[in-house]
Amino acid sequence: MATQPIAISPENDAIWQSIQTETQAAINKEPVLASFLHSTILNHKTLERALSFHLANKLDSPTVSALLVREVIEDALASDSTIAKAVRCDIRAVKERDSACSLYSVPFLYFKGFHALQAYRVAHWLWNQGREDLALFFQNCISTEFGVDIHPAAKIGHGILIDHATGVVIGETATVGNNVSLMHSVTLGGTGKEGGDRHPKVGDGVLISAGAKILGNIRIGSGAKVGSGSVVLQDVPAHTTVAGVPAKVIGKPGSDQPALDMNHGINCDMG
Amino acid sequence: MATQPIAISPENDAIWQSIQTETQAAINKEPVLASFLHSTILNHKTLERALSFHLANKLDSPTVSALLVREVIEDALASDSTIAKAVRCDIRAVKERDSACSLYSVPFLYFKGFHALQAYRVAHWLWNQGREDLALFFQNCISTEFGVDIHPAAKIGHGILIDHATGVVIGETATVGNNVSLMHSVTLGGTGKEGGDRHPKVGDGVLISAGAKILGNIRIGSGAKVGSGSVVLQDVPAHTTVAGVPAKVIGKPGSDQPALDMNHGINCDMG
Amino acid sequence: MATQPIAISPENDAIWQSIQTETQAAINKEPVLASFLHSTILNHKTLERALSFHLANKLDSPTVSALLVREVIEDALASDSTIAKAVRCDIRAVKERDSACSLYSVPFLYFKGFHALQAYRVAHWLWNQGREDLALFFQNCISTEFGVDIHPAAKIGHGILIDHATGVVIGETATVGNNVSLMHSVTLGGTGKEGGDRHPKVGDGVLISAGAKILGNIRIGSGAKVGSGSVVLQDVPAHTTVAGVPAKVIGKPGSDQPALDMNHGINCDMG
Amino acid sequence: MATQPIAISPENDAIWQSIQTETQAAINKEPVLASFLHSTILNHKTLERALSFHLANKLDSPTVSALLVREVIEDALASDSTIAKAVRCDIRAVKERDSACSLYSVPFLYFKGFHALQAYRVAHWLWNQGREDLALFFQNCISTEFGVDIHPAAKIGHGILIDHATGVVIGETATVGNNVSLMHSVTLGGTGKEGGDRHPKVGDGVLISAGAKILGNIRIGSGAKVGSGSVVLQDVPAHTTVAGVPAKVIGKPGSDQPALDMNHGINCDMG
Amino acid sequence: MATQPIAISPENDAIWQSIQTETQAAINKEPVLASFLHSTILNHKTLERALSFHLANKLDSPTVSALLVREVIEDALASDSTIAKAVRCDIRAVKERDSACSLYSVPFLYFKGFHALQAYRVAHWLWNQGREDLALFFQNCISTEFGVDIHPAAKIGHGILIDHATGVVIGETATVGNNVSLMHSVTLGGTGKEGGDRHPKVGDGVLISAGAKILGNIRIGSGAKVGSGSVVLQDVPAHTTVAGVPAKVIGKPGSDQPALDMNHGINCDMG
Amino acid sequence: MATQPIAISPENDAIWQSIQTETQAAINKEPVLASFLHSTILNHKTLERALSFHLANKLDSPTVSALLVREVIEDALASDSTIAKAVRCDIRAVKERDSACSLYSVPFLYFKGFHALQAYRVAHWLWNQGREDLALFFQNCISTEFGVDIHPAAKIGHGILIDHATGVVIGETATVGNNVSLMHSVTLGGTGKEGGDRHPKVGDGVLISAGAKILGNIRIGSGAKVGSGSVVLQDVPAHTTVAGVPAKVIGKPGSDQPALDMNHGINCDMG
Repeated sequence: MATQPIAISPENDAIWQSIQTETQAAINKEPVLASFLHSTILNHKTLERALSFHLANKLDSPTVSALLVREVIEDALASDSTIAKAVRCDIRAVKERDSACSLYSVPFLYFKGFHALQAYRVAHWLWNQGREDLALFFQNCISTEFGVDIHPAAKIGHGILIDHATGVVIGETATVGNNVSLMHSVTLGGTGKEGGDRHPKVGDGVLISAGAKILGNIRIGSGAKVGSGSVVLQDVPAHTTVAGVPAKVIGKPGSDQPALDMNHGINCDMG
Repeated sequence: MATQPIAISPENDAIWQSIQTETQAAINKEPVLASFLHSTILNHKTLERALSFHLANKLDSPTVSALLVREVIEDALASDSTIAKAVRCDIRAVKERDSACSLYSVPFLYFKGFHALQAYRVAHWLWNQGREDLALFFQNCISTEFGVDIHPAAKIGHGILIDHATGVVIGETATVGNNVSLMHSVTLGGTGKEGGDRHPKVGDGVLISAGAKILGNIRIGSGAKVGSGSVVLQDVPAHTTVAGVPAKVIGKPGSDQPALDMNHGINCDMG
Repeated sequence: MATQPIAISPENDAIWQSIQTETQAAINKEPVLASFLHSTILNHKTLERALSFHLANKLDSPTVSALLVREVIEDALASDSTIAKAVRCDIRAVKERDSACSLYSVPFLYFKGFHALQAYRVAHWLWNQGREDLALFFQNCISTEFGVDIHPAAKIGHGILIDHATGVVIGETATVGNNVSLMHSVTLGGTGKEGGDRHPKVGDGVLISAGAKILGNIRIGSGAKVGSGSVVLQDVPAHTTVAGVPAKVIGKPGSDQPALDMNHGINCDMG
Repeated sequence: MATQPIAISPENDAIWQSIQTETQAAINKEPVLASFLHSTILNHKTLERALSFHLANKLDSPTVSALLVREVIEDALASDSTIAKAVRCDIRAVKERDSACSLYSVPFLYFKGFHALQAYRVAHWLWNQGREDLALFFQNCISTEFGVDIHPAAKIGHGILIDHATGVVIGETATVGNNVSLMHSVTLGGTGKEGGDRHPKVGDGVLISAGAKILGNIRIGSGAKVGSGSVVLQDVPAHTTVAGVPAKVIGKPGSDQPALDMNHGINCDMG
Repeated sequence: MATQPIAISPENDAIWQSIQTETQAAINKEPVLASFLHSTILNHKTLERALSFHLANKLDSPTVSALLVREVIEDALASDSTIAKAVRCDIRAVKERDSACSLYSVPFLYFKGFHALQAYRVAHWLWNQGREDLALFFQNCISTEFGVDIHPAAKIGHGILIDHATGVVIGETATVGNNVSLMHSVTLGGTGKEGGDRHPKVGDGVLISAGAKILGNIRIGSGAKVGSGSVVLQDVPAHTTVAGVPAKVIGKPGSDQPALDMNHGINCDMG
Repeated sequence: MATQPIAISPENDAIWQSIQTETQAAINKEPVLASFLHSTILNHKTLERALSFHLANKLDSPTVSALLVREVIEDALASDSTIAKAVRCDIRAVKERDSACSLYSVPFLYFKGFHALQAYRVAHWLWNQGREDLALFFQNCISTEFGVDIHPAAKIGHGILIDHATGVVIGETATVGNNVSLMHSVTLGGTGKEGGDRHPKVGDGVLISAGAKILGNIRIGSGAKVGSGSVVLQDVPAHTTVAGVPAKVIGKPGSDQPALDMNHGINCDMG
């Protein structure tokens, strides 16, 4: 992203155009959804406006209305353009990696892992602005609505897939690189009641399978794979597969960036 | 179900009659719930009408109203009579297997695993009608509301208990036989980013304990038991108990259909 | 708590006063939340009134309105003063043990584990009054809203931290002592379909890490620690660390009450 | 309506077909309404289904949900086919007489006088079934939502225009013929606190201008016109214009059925 | 009301007991309303609790929730016992004078004139406490919800019937005595843009018929009757009937307190 | 408005600054409203943002959400700057003419005549853009919510007071000048079922008292006064008072612009 000669506009926004085209097809095919799809997608000029509308409806509550929530989301998208870029990378990541998803519009409309992640991006922006209270409010809404608890201070890259999503927990000082895939019930947790740097650092391209718990300020090297149900308490070298309770090195992933393959099997990784 | 001489009608629908009787008793005992119980149960002539009312209220959202959702549920129940039969089998399964549940009305009214399963049945019907978009919309609602993520293309039999339910994930090409019991956080997951047949096939009478992850296109034979927290990556023979990360055969279940006993202990299964 | 010379009143309620002071500061800092914070905290004279207001909004539904839910919560708080005391112990527990939380107001306002626990306390009171139906209704609301499934008959002490909370399950005959810390996805489950005493008994000061499953009528001794992802099927002696699938004794916790330290690492506990 | 060789079906229902065609044009022109118009019109097979959906949304309340209200409306439409016919006559009446309305869909979607009238028709059916309580509930909803208070026992014909509608009051023993036009703030009121027949009887084709009060068991003959702001305390002969406080005969309407002309002027009627 | 030996309690509250008995009968007869009637009437121990519940639901809005509104209503009822007494007088007044109403429960549940009046009583209490802002908020809610605009500073006695109610306006310095009947669209208006005492003073037992406008600081003597549609700009002596635009004395009412007879005819009053 | 040297900005917007100052005082005085006042006023940078927020909440419905309504209002305010200027003139008009209103914030927050008028301004802008369908949708919402029915094609100036507002009707081809005061139940109605120019033309500074009906394409000259309850069927010369049914000239108003005095008395106008 060093050079950036062309800003995103509705005219050259290929993902947004695909989403609109797919949505129009869906309306023609499924009249019951026409109402929802018009108000959520076709009524809006940009992906950003559609996203603020959709997330605000998801996070609506009796005490803080969708109208207020939407204002905050729009402020975040307007003042930090990296959020909108990450949104597009995340959409592309889901479409490319999730074999059950062949459309750009599907994660945008229907995947709660995607919704939780984008709402976290807003909360993270709030946190960096020194607006911790509102960031915590968002964290609570995200956890209640989607079952995903990401501390707003955590740092997460782009091109992220959070699949199925229920039960994911990411702690305050965790970092997650780019192009990472996290399955449901994955924990990037801390240890100890003292503050300070106490959560995992996950490199680029890592695949963390369902239910894996990674605890403490440890490093998961780029291109590593963590098997389902593992409990990881020590550093994992790059391009290494670990599994078990507690997790042990069992081999190497079959590719450089296992997050992109989504191969959760570990047998063929064994030496 | 080969012969079916008598269709279900309100007059001979023993489960619906029990639910009504139990509900009337509950109203007399607990006035705070009278309002809820009247509108949800007693106002309706049939179990189907009550179910469409109750689920529609559960799946209500700012963008697709309960009125619209209910129309879809009623269409499904009217055009595929096997759904209504499966509903009754599922109610009976919960009452018989869940030691904390002694009434037919309790799963119907209060168990989110039951609600998620019936909403999936509607989504599955939609998927089979070629209405994938609306099926995905239902999948998202079910996942957000109940924390249960079942792909609408998955095939699930009758007499199913999904207990506690939070975190259950069932993938696109998974199949689940009849009279199966699944605890919370169970995953029937895929592996790999390619499409095609990539999820588990679970036989009849299987018991899968809390947090077990079963990954890939493998077979879990009829009457098998999968221990809590296991990660299963290989076929499991019928009438066999497996446990551990990764799961290994440790013995045989104490009964032919462990799903009916709900005995999650594995010590006595060991050889 | 044998002698209790001074009843809690708004004037001597240090936690409630702290919550009010913190909230006033938050309003000054974050106008978007002013509306929410005024209606939830500053409008109320007592912690009890604020709690009934906040929980009622969380548990609002199309079928049983917040107005009705609040009446029940107020009845419970008025007739059983131990609930209000436990609420304050729980708030203090979160602030002291959760390194991401430095304010009394934060768990009260934003932590769904705290909300689920207090709503359970109301359900438990209902159960003890013989109002099982309404208790089950609350259980369902708590499970759907927070992803936490606690049977209303379970017995839980004070000073409890349920961190992150998604996926926690606590069964009908389980008991949990005082000053216990439970992470997300912890199960205190039963085994078998017969009724009777079939769930774990957890002592004081125990720490149960993320995703641990404890199954059956077994004892977890005071001051024990259960490692993340463990599956515990046998008694655990007091002041002992167990881990693994199935869990084995691996050493002793580094302190008398590991729940207070929140040290989830198990390496340094090893003998 | 003596002979009725052809029942209304979606295929031969010219008004419903016009409404659908007009609505499709409106969606193409105004995307903001697409969502509303799809869910209210295009999602439905028949005018009756669309009407029950639209009215139920209008009469939704925190205590009796749209789901319940819609069931009642559907029961009424299903069991009394004259309602559906009157609905169509009323739509045609508005389109023909209201110079600000050139589409069939406009009164159906947007005119509260039309909505109040159709909701009254449901309440009247309830009253005739002996379900007075629910009829009174509907009366209250109609009065609160639309500012139109029609007692459910009143008898009202077809081809009725209630224009602007706010403040209209029609009492228990009033009758209104066919093809009548009533402007806003018109009262057909009783007098005295005794029961019995005490409200006006209005003939066919009558025009009652804005704010006119007609009080007591008096007859307004067919084809009469009542001037705006009049207070009528005595019988009015057929084909006669009255005006003033109290109202006096001032001449004759310029046509046989003044309701169809909507000429509120009275100067040219003067002798 | 000089002596008051017996305070109202649920046990000796004849009106509340009648309302409960009538409601139980309605539930048995009309299951669709069972839900509404339970939550609104049978769930409550006292008329006051039922009233605060019912009004709070009526005045619910996206910006000030029913929970908050109810707290205010309960404060008013608890601190000024004359409100609760006036409520009962008003209920009795409706039942005795409205020939379309034969039950105590009907005005309580379904008459918006009654609802508007009781909500005004709360606003008036707020105004007298110096809480003008909240009083104006209530005035706005009442006007929007019921179409009745009563300034909270106006003084209104007990035993009041506001029939049909749409369009009633009562200004800031107006006073209304006891046992008065006001029909819909009645105005007690001021004149001039200066403050000070500028609205009508209405004596006891007065009947003001539909649409009458009474303007300025004039007196309507006790037992007077004002004909429908009249515009009154001058004092009206006690026990006198006036009518017309502008209103003139036309005779005497047929009884001492015409409000109790509800005879809106004026012919027989003429001299 | 020929020259316009200084655009309105938050810094030089005296009315908006007064509203904010008054609101802050109200919050300090009345905590129950703090929540509402923060979200409606203090959270916003400009009067326009506050207005779009407040009106959107007022016009929220199950079928078209506040989020969508607000987008339309913001578009109107952004593309036609005369609306925002008229809004300020209207606020000033209410404060200066309504003796019960001494604050700028009160009409903005609490007067439904003001809310209806501003929502009409948005509908009028839509109509002029050729978006008749959405304009009619707004008209219906305004009529249902506020009891005020203004056709979106009507032309209305600035500095308008619509007091109490219930029952006001203004037809398609009506025009209303600047600085006009209309009381509740005023009708500017048409006559005849043919299209074309058929509604009144009201000059500047006119006062129309409660319940007056003005019918047909007639002129009400500048500075005229129409007495309460009048029915006007002929032109009224400038600076003339008319009253009665039908209305006749009775004298001259006591001032040049009777709308500013709000003197509804007509006695002193008589010759």
